[in-house]
Amino acid sequence: MSAAPTSAALAALRDRLATVYDLNKSASVLEWDQETYMPEGAAEARAYRLATLRRLSHEHFTADETGDLLDTTGTETADLDPHDPDRALVRVAQRDYDRATQLPAQLVSDFATATARAKQAWQAARADDDFARFAPHLQTVIDLSIEKADAMGAASPAARYDVLLDEYEPGMTADVVAREFADLRTGLVPLVEAIADAPQVDAAFLHAQTDEEVFDEAVQWAFGLEVAQAFGYDLHHGRQDRSAHPFSTTLAIDDVRITTRIDPRFFPSGFFGTLHETGHALYERGVSPTLARSPLASGTSLGMHESQSRLWENQVGRSRSFWQHWYPKLQAAFPGRFDAVPLDAFYRAINQVAPSFIRVEADEVTY
Amino acid sequence: MSAAPTSAALAALRDRLATVYDLNKSASVLEWDQETYMPEGAAEARAYRLATLRRLSHEHFTADETGDLLDTTGTETADLDPHDPDRALVRVAQRDYDRATQLPAQLVSDFATATARAKQAWQAARADDDFARFAPHLQTVIDLSIEKADAMGAASPAARYDVLLDEYEPGMTADVVAREFADLRTGLVPLVEAIADAPQVDAAFLHAQTDEEVFDEAVQWAFGLEVAQAFGYDLHHGRQDRSAHPFSTTLAIDDVRITTRIDPRFFPSGFFGTLHETGHALYERGVSPTLARSPLASGTSLGMHESQSRLWENQVGRSRSFWQHWYPKLQAAFPGRFDAVPLDAFYRAINQVAPSFIRVEADEVTY
Repeated sequence: MSAAPTSAALAALRDRLATVYDLNKSASVLEWDQETYMPEGAAEARAYRLATLRRLSHEHFTADETGDLLDTTGTETADLDPHDPDRALVRVAQRDYDRATQLPAQLVSDFATATARAKQAWQAARADDDFARFAPHLQTVIDLSIEKADAMGAASPAARYDVLLDEYEPGMTADVVAREFADLRTGLVPLVEAIADAPQVDAAFLHAQTDEEVFDEAVQWAFGLEVAQAFGYDLHHGRQDRSAHPFSTTLAIDDVRITTRIDPRFFPSGFFGTLHETGHALYERGVSPTLARSPLASGTSLGMHESQSRLWENQVGRSRSFWQHWYPKLQAAFPGRFDAVPLDAFYRAINQVAPSFIRVEADEVTY
Repeated sequence: MSAAPTSAALAALRDRLATVYDLNKSASVLEWDQETYMPEGAAEARAYRLATLRRLSHEHFTADETGDLLDTTGTETADLDPHDPDRALVRVAQRDYDRATQLPAQLVSDFATATARAKQAWQAARADDDFARFAPHLQTVIDLSIEKADAMGAASPAARYDVLLDEYEPGMTADVVAREFADLRTGLVPLVEAIADAPQVDAAFLHAQTDEEVFDEAVQWAFGLEVAQAFGYDLHHGRQDRSAHPFSTTLAIDDVRITTRIDPRFFPSGFFGTLHETGHALYERGVSPTLARSPLASGTSLGMHESQSRLWENQVGRSRSFWQHWYPKLQAAFPGRFDAVPLDAFYRAINQVAPSFIRVEADEVTY
């Protein structure tokens, strides 16, 4: 069945959702600023702004008018094809509404304040390698997350993770994730052990051993951006900045930004970070303009998002054919640096497998 | 009479005003971003965000609840000293409320959209020196300003300027401004003519005549910021970025930012721009933290603001005693550049008087 002409209720619903979207994306601009350019001394005031924006967004979204419009449009779109954008809009908005209406506005506001403060504390703690300074903020965020899960009807402590996970990966549960990790573990642990027992790849040339050997930051920056643009990332609708931890953020379908962190002593860190965030950004930039200012104007889940970031980072960016094209350019960008390193040695080095604390093993994940 | 204990109504009023403040200052973050870092292709979406924030701020502020709270607190504070912060808060909020309630929300939203679009068009038009591209946007802003003045009860076309001026300079009228300009003209025109007839100051050394002579941008930047910090501008609560036109913006009492524009061929342009914006910023940074998130958390008028910016730019920054201290540092920052220029010649050059299009004569001002 083809799409029905837009009803008055659907138009009114779109309008409400657009206001909510504008408030949320305004908050995203403030968060982007907080992680890139905001002066340190502004953190407390920024927390107030974000709490107000998130509270107003929540109040506007959870108002009875939204519920009434969802009832009407739910009926109106019930017979449409499940893939029809109108029906999908109502379905996703209804799901979000059912979740949001379980949360008191004060909790939403408190959560925004706590995460804004935590972010700032984390940046300072990270710079000083001082976990103790961040710990109380983390505790507050965990406490509020538990409160949130309980408000959304988590029947038991074990169910809290399911309730929270559902926000990022609709329909996913901790049981399924645990099973997936167990499966992966069965295959991965012997593989990692076999790799550890095999002759080690030489990746020393990726590291600067002395201050003289550092990889020029401006050159790293330009090279990463050149590849990002070759992937299709358009600086007319995006930009890259520095932040303590790389991220991608959607401020509008036409404004998807990435950040990165350059390590002057280890070229792959910034470069693959840029490719990773570019993957997220390309996914968001691929949203149809017809979905603008609606809850459909985003990736479908965090898992799908990560599949896109890692596609560009790893399947493309760590492939031999990718480097057949880019390696000569990298060699030219860092003159002399990789003269003695054949393509194949470089390819092996950037695919070196070693345990690290960044991706923990399944049995270290707590929920 | 000393301040009465804060009543429930006053607390509720403060709360509403804080939400309005948060919305307005969130919009200021978005506007700052638009003029500094936002990718060009994001302009249309940004206009929507700003229109929504300005509309919600207006709706929240002009709601009947605000009027009721102003009535109650107006009575409660009527006997306080006129300088009492509570009485001042109610007085200023009432004045703003009386103005705002005359404007329909749609006009506020349209105005925000139009100015966001105009800003973007102006940046592009300025870069290409193409007024024709900006002209239709300017016309829209003028039309909406007229609509705004009429909505606020301008009794005649001549009264429109008074109504609009009152927003920036409370109580000021076009008649008074015209009289002031006429007085200034009486004194200034003969003065400028006398200067034009006198031997001209040599300011050639302030200009780069060739590409080799340009004033290094990074050095200009650092020198301007060093002076700004010596004036008391604190980068823990502020920052300087580039923009098409220099401005200062308050994102919070603890986050007052400036921008500048560096001209590699004319050192004074960026430098005195930085000093000027620093003056605005210092004025805003001087607001008491006890006034945070209220309509009192700002300078008292545009005229007072300009007195502060020009104090630091001209009375301080173009004085001989200022340069007795800073000239040796400037000479060191641009090695060799000013070796043949004595302090007094430099001092005269930066105070050179010449007609320009930036500050037009009184009879060219149209209202």
